Amino acid sequence: MRAVVSLNSGSSSIKFALFTLDEEGAPGLSAGGKIEKIGIAPALAIHDASGNIVHTRAWDDPALTHGDLLAWLFDWAAGHLEGRELIAIGHRVVHGGMDFAHPCRVTPEVLEALEALCPLAPLHQPHNLAAIRAIIRIAPDLPQIACFDTAFHHDRPAIATRFALPRALHDQGIRRYGFHGLSYDYIARTLAERDPDLAAGRVIAAHLGNGASLCAMAGGRSVDTTMGFTALDGLVMGTRCGTLDAGVVLHLQRRMGMTAQEVEAMLYNRSGLLGVSGLSSDMRTLSASAAPEAEEAIDLFAWRAAREAGALAASLGGVDGFVFTAGIGENHSDVRARICRRLGWLGIALDAEANAGHKPVISLPGSAVTVRIIPTDEERMIALHTLALLSATRA
Amino acid sequence: MRAVVSLNSGSSSIKFALFTLDEEGAPGLSAGGKIEKIGIAPALAIHDASGNIVHTRAWDDPALTHGDLLAWLFDWAAGHLEGRELIAIGHRVVHGGMDFAHPCRVTPEVLEALEALCPLAPLHQPHNLAAIRAIIRIAPDLPQIACFDTAFHHDRPAIATRFALPRALHDQGIRRYGFHGLSYDYIARTLAERDPDLAAGRVIAAHLGNGASLCAMAGGRSVDTTMGFTALDGLVMGTRCGTLDAGVVLHLQRRMGMTAQEVEAMLYNRSGLLGVSGLSSDMRTLSASAAPEAEEAIDLFAWRAAREAGALAASLGGVDGFVFTAGIGENHSDVRARICRRLGWLGIALDAEANAGHKPVISLPGSAVTVRIIPTDEERMIALHTLALLSATRA
Repeated sequence: MRAVVSLNSGSSSIKFALFTLDEEGAPGLSAGGKIEKIGIAPALAIHDASGNIVHTRAWDDPALTHGDLLAWLFDWAAGHLEGRELIAIGHRVVHGGMDFAHPCRVTPEVLEALEALCPLAPLHQPHNLAAIRAIIRIAPDLPQIACFDTAFHHDRPAIATRFALPRALHDQGIRRYGFHGLSYDYIARTLAERDPDLAAGRVIAAHLGNGASLCAMAGGRSVDTTMGFTALDGLVMGTRCGTLDAGVVLHLQRRMGMTAQEVEAMLYNRSGLLGVSGLSSDMRTLSASAAPEAEEAIDLFAWRAAREAGALAASLGGVDGFVFTAGIGENHSDVRARICRRLGWLGIALDAEANAGHKPVISLPGSAVTVRIIPTDEERMIALHTLALLSATRA
Repeated sequence: MRAVVSLNSGSSSIKFALFTLDEEGAPGLSAGGKIEKIGIAPALAIHDASGNIVHTRAWDDPALTHGDLLAWLFDWAAGHLEGRELIAIGHRVVHGGMDFAHPCRVTPEVLEALEALCPLAPLHQPHNLAAIRAIIRIAPDLPQIACFDTAFHHDRPAIATRFALPRALHDQGIRRYGFHGLSYDYIARTLAERDPDLAAGRVIAAHLGNGASLCAMAGGRSVDTTMGFTALDGLVMGTRCGTLDAGVVLHLQRRMGMTAQEVEAMLYNRSGLLGVSGLSSDMRTLSASAAPEAEEAIDLFAWRAAREAGALAASLGGVDGFVFTAGIGENHSDVRARICRRLGWLGIALDAEANAGHKPVISLPGSAVTVRIIPTDEERMIALHTLALLSATRA
């Protein structure tokens, strides 16, 4: 049996999933897991295909690097592959810049090009690449595939990529890239399987998790999205501000004496739901709270999502379908209801019962816009890209 | 005969208009004019009610202040009032902050409160207030009325005023104020006279000039607008960037070594139509150009306007009317057509001939959304506010 691993290496965590290929080469999840709190006290949990925890471990060692932990993980896996042959590792890489429109196999040249993109995503890209380098050291001959969060948006109309800044900056790469592309790619493919007519139309996909964005898809291709140059832009997020008047950033520095570094830390880590509520970045906590500040935060989240959906409707020239995904999108019927209520004018008529039951279709039969829930699966998308690239290379 | 003067004092210019009251107290324009290039070589032009230039003058003296020039203007006016009694001066004041929801008579306390708002609009507010102070010196007993660009937006739903930032910042005044309020107030009143049914509905007004924004009005009241904390936010403007990922501001500083001051100067003065085209900030120049960069800038301007109109449609819950105003909105049929074409999905059907002829109504009879052109008149709005406040005070 052959297998591939999907790896998502962040600043303080590593997520992984092992997919075993069936006889037709289709990947089935065999196990997955996460190492968290890297740099503090790393803690590992591995689950099986059903989500049952099969192994945990903790290290009381802040000095352990991503590389150390990946090496440990490889050792552990070697004893547990049960005859599977690991044929490749696919990585989530947040930024593909202007050039990487598709997943690609990592070569020294590719790695160098991706390294050059670190300033565009300094909080994520270095950790993505650190995992690739670690695995080169551990298993130099194992094919590694880089799958980009920007690639799904790469071929949008040029107008959707441009800020109204001096041209030279656009040419240097200061442009709207968009993110969550692996999730949107998965949603587009899954929608095409489940509802090909809808997938052929104008669809807004809402990836609402701790990070959050919307993607306008026409015929399954991205034509616009709410995230811009960084993952700070667009919707209200757990701790990120989303769309913000650039004049505020300047005001905080020039009139309130903050440094750029302090502003950056505040906009990424202390804003969004956390900042507005003053309570929590977690929608579950806010939903359970009776505090008016929690209500304000949730309402702002929904208002901004509806407002941005209106903007994307303009980019699409109207809307046929709306898809909710990711943690909040899949699990918070109240948030979905708020957003849909604000979009009644677009022709959305929500089926309250289906929504409460988290059904696949949550709009009423007569709704002009079909509203669906599709659980996203970025790990599977990485595995699919990885396998597609391997077979294309082999062919 | 009684008369009032409207004054709009900017960084390098002073605009003014003299309105004479008829027997019912309604203001009629008698003269207007502008002093430009203050600080370089001030140049004055005064026109009569028909727009014919009746007086010009130039000073080759960069040291002349706003106060000096206003004193000169008062002297000149004293000899030309032809028996009119000047009863008040109304001022455009860009920022009324959290407290000023209506025009108000300037007192020492008011002036102090407005002074405290200078950090919120450092490019405009100090010049607005300098004119008020100058006139206190020249004519201490003349009533002066401050008319705020923010006031029309003051009573929007609270949700539309909030950024997803830590609550303390919102409480300190870091919020979405919105601007161009005198223009929108004038549009709302004029629409209510010309088309009361439409004015009672959901209307998007597009103030498209060198500065540009949209306002969502329900029943003639602002419910949302594209400008935020500063006049930098929202649409593409002549030299301003409009909506920009805050991450770009931080990137320019932290990874490209620009200072906050340099970024501010670039975003205000070298971005927008000028930045994208690399040619000009003037829509007339760009429209006349065959350069692809000019086309890109115009197209981005229209795309962003349509996108933001979609966002405001969400805030309104649908759209019944659309009003174009200000320099570009009143005079550029091509730009109007581009925006309306992108909003066909909202139910806008443009009457190409009426649009080309700059008619008051430019949508087809069957259009679900009525599209109008209404020339704005901020000077008259200031005069109307000034007179209303005087008569309310007297009553």
